[in-house]
Amino acid sequence: MKIDIITIFPEVFNDFLGNSIIKRAIQNNYLAVQTINLRDYSHNIHLKVDDTIYGGGSGMLMAFPPLYDAIQALKTPLSKVIYLSPQGKVFKQNKAKKLAKENHLIFICGHYEGLDARVLQLVDEEISIGDYVLTQGELATMVVIDAVARLVDGVIARTSVENDSLFHGLLKQDEYTKPEEYQGFSVPEILLSGHHENIKAYNEYQALKNTYLKRPDLLRKKKLTSEQKKILNQVQEDLKPK
Amino acid sequence: MKIDIITIFPEVFNDFLGNSIIKRAIQNNYLAVQTINLRDYSHNIHLKVDDTIYGGGSGMLMAFPPLYDAIQALKTPLSKVIYLSPQGKVFKQNKAKKLAKENHLIFICGHYEGLDARVLQLVDEEISIGDYVLTQGELATMVVIDAVARLVDGVIARTSVENDSLFHGLLKQDEYTKPEEYQGFSVPEILLSGHHENIKAYNEYQALKNTYLKRPDLLRKKKLTSEQKKILNQVQEDLKPK
Repeated sequence: MKIDIITIFPEVFNDFLGNSIIKRAIQNNYLAVQTINLRDYSHNIHLKVDDTIYGGGSGMLMAFPPLYDAIQALKTPLSKVIYLSPQGKVFKQNKAKKLAKENHLIFICGHYEGLDARVLQLVDEEISIGDYVLTQGELATMVVIDAVARLVDGVIARTSVENDSLFHGLLKQDEYTKPEEYQGFSVPEILLSGHHENIKAYNEYQALKNTYLKRPDLLRKKKLTSEQKKILNQVQEDLKPK
Repeated sequence: MKIDIITIFPEVFNDFLGNSIIKRAIQNNYLAVQTINLRDYSHNIHLKVDDTIYGGGSGMLMAFPPLYDAIQALKTPLSKVIYLSPQGKVFKQNKAKKLAKENHLIFICGHYEGLDARVLQLVDEEISIGDYVLTQGELATMVVIDAVARLVDGVIARTSVENDSLFHGLLKQDEYTKPEEYQGFSVPEILLSGHHENIKAYNEYQALKNTYLKRPDLLRKKKLTSEQKKILNQVQEDLKPK
């Protein structure tokens, strides 16, 4: 997969792109990532790429011409142009899975009060990583690239992806590692029992309990098996005040 | 506000903390940010901080003792300990506003398959930045710090915050900047008219239209004024196929 990032702060991506999983994916040729400095496309002698807002409104917008030129220079029929903004459709794991199958993603990183709305006519997907406002589009772009890149075939082990929270539409059970006890905090005994069947049943119960307590909305969206429904009933029964 | 970040990759935060708005907030003493290398609290001669999962399960978990020790070393009665994970409550702008009023935030950056669940007993808030899976907790931590830091009093101009998409629970209107025309793409004429009242009405209409088309869910959550309801009816009328 080819990824181009149009930004006024290309250096902000250095740590991110030099970081373990993304770095390895680039070294192994699963990903080719390029940052493009938007100022290279400025029409202005001072390399300005922003200007005041027509019809009032405080602050500045990213101007249309540099973004138009940059997108035209990068775009092919296989490209998808993505703009991260709080106005976009909220990003979810399913969208990450879809984007992981694309050939070429071009990201536009917004700044200031946003960008000249004409740019949206060149954008295939306007995506928001959540209902909150960030100072810069760069962070949101990294989040989407990170979520997508790890799903690109070969980047990480398939078992690891299937082990994700949310992969099956449910949260995971609580998990524990050594030591058995520290400062009065202990691992649940059953997990130390070595009795695989009991442990499996315990974990299934805990996964549904976690989902029920922390993210009940996921249970409404998910089609549970009859076995899972039975366990969920038990969870609800056990949580009732006695 | 004091922010401590417990991480196994402190260097990943360099670009982020050296970046415009956060950097200025630190220089002007609105924020004091410290990264803590979790390996400094390892109980292991090889500085290991992870181990295999009790009761099976592939992958590794971050172990309890180093995290316990690190949190104890940093925590005061005024601290809030935050763990970013896909299992947390989904982060929204309202939560950012609340966290912006705190004195001291301690962030735990997760890695591997997650962390020993005993850590959750030391955590005040388990937060997810969205329903997708990332390779590392560092990015999610930056997102929350970015969203919170810009709301800390003094960090950015108040008018800028009030101008945010989502600040009023609605999306903004489309905005435009110079030039009036480029490559056949033009600014809507009314915005060039100089007629302030018409422009204001146009913008209010466009803001509601944007919200209706892109994020109708926000309209269900928001209490509209009777004036806004009237405009929204007009939007719906205008969008009906004629």
